[in-house]
Amino acid sequence: MKANSIPSPQINPNVSVDCVVFGYSNGVLKVLLIKRKAIKNVSTEQFAIPGDLVNQDESLDAAAEKILFGLTNIEGIYLKQFHTFGDPNRVSALKDQEWLRAFRKEPEARVITVAYYALIKSEDYTPSPSSFAGETQWTPIHEIPTLAFDHNLIVEAAYEHLKDNLIDKRIGFELLPEKFTLSQLQKFYEAILNINYDKRNFRKNLKTKTYLKKLDEKLKGQAHRPANLYIYKED
Amino acid sequence: MKANSIPSPQINPNVSVDCVVFGYSNGVLKVLLIKRKAIKNVSTEQFAIPGDLVNQDESLDAAAEKILFGLTNIEGIYLKQFHTFGDPNRVSALKDQEWLRAFRKEPEARVITVAYYALIKSEDYTPSPSSFAGETQWTPIHEIPTLAFDHNLIVEAAYEHLKDNLIDKRIGFELLPEKFTLSQLQKFYEAILNINYDKRNFRKNLKTKTYLKKLDEKLKGQAHRPANLYIYKED
Repeated sequence: MKANSIPSPQINPNVSVDCVVFGYSNGVLKVLLIKRKAIKNVSTEQFAIPGDLVNQDESLDAAAEKILFGLTNIEGIYLKQFHTFGDPNRVSALKDQEWLRAFRKEPEARVITVAYYALIKSEDYTPSPSSFAGETQWTPIHEIPTLAFDHNLIVEAAYEHLKDNLIDKRIGFELLPEKFTLSQLQKFYEAILNINYDKRNFRKNLKTKTYLKKLDEKLKGQAHRPANLYIYKED
Repeated sequence: MKANSIPSPQINPNVSVDCVVFGYSNGVLKVLLIKRKAIKNVSTEQFAIPGDLVNQDESLDAAAEKILFGLTNIEGIYLKQFHTFGDPNRVSALKDQEWLRAFRKEPEARVITVAYYALIKSEDYTPSPSSFAGETQWTPIHEIPTLAFDHNLIVEAAYEHLKDNLIDKRIGFELLPEKFTLSQLQKFYEAILNINYDKRNFRKNLKTKTYLKKLDEKLKGQAHRPANLYIYKED
């Protein structure tokens, strides 16, 4: 996209989108953060999730995709809207107001933000910063620093939403190999739910689940007691 | 609330809330609609769900409660935010633009709407119209007329959300008596999901559910083969 070859569309001063991108890899759940550049008169660098104001002529979904790509160069992932945050004081911290005055045409406008989340295999994507993002990084979910605006609240809400839907809606199976062992599944649940399961109880509980299908096939490359493979099957 | 005793807070021209209130009673699922008054130069009366612009100083949740009460006199119900609608052309129909020009200070503003839903026992509430609502009515879910703006889309999305969460998240048990029969439960599911279950399969399927507890108690007032009572128990 050549930014200087198209006229800049009018920006809606009151509505933004923010993206919580969860990355899973090797038993660790991380969140994609950007570090804002310290330029103009803003002295304090600050971590944030990728987000920006919405243009007047674009849908919220399109804005979310474009903004995530524009800041982190990540594209082609399924971003799902999960909640809109509209506390009238959500941008009232001094640091945030300083940043808004430096970067926004209407720094006093009340901004309501529509939040999106995604869950991807982090090893499949390599983020790189652009625009006002000076750095990008995958940060483990339990090591998130203080973020800009109400972004800690947004990450926390996205994480609750993820945990809440992991079992009820059975999301996330696409992050496992197509054929997986129960150990891989346990490791995945443990990473997201931050729980240690007892192996025996975990397996006992899974026996009642009609969406797991045991294959007549074992994991290759294991000489001693190779583990059974399973697939996920919509019921 | 005496509207004329407090100064009118500034209105955010870009953000509204809309409320889809589902009412359940006697095996029928309905939606609370308002019919807008035909005043000023707007000739066409139109049905809509209750909604309006948000004030600058109020949270989205507070705005939803206030607006629902202000149009229908219904209060004290749990409204849950479920989705934000932001199609740039969501208010482009001629009828809608006519209404906006008559009622809004900035009729050209792009309005993004944060939608809420609730599920209540309709017999416990008696709506009555005020403000720009000339009428209120409970309309069966499958008889919703053409509504203002994108309100048909919003009702449809709320209904999908409701159906989707009815079983996965086990919502709605508070609409049944505390102790209920399996026939009452079947009727409730059938009304919301618009399905007719085979009685035998329905009961067989429920046997695997750990959140239903059979009581050592039967429905009173039935001389012949009184039905067993159940309670809902979080597992």
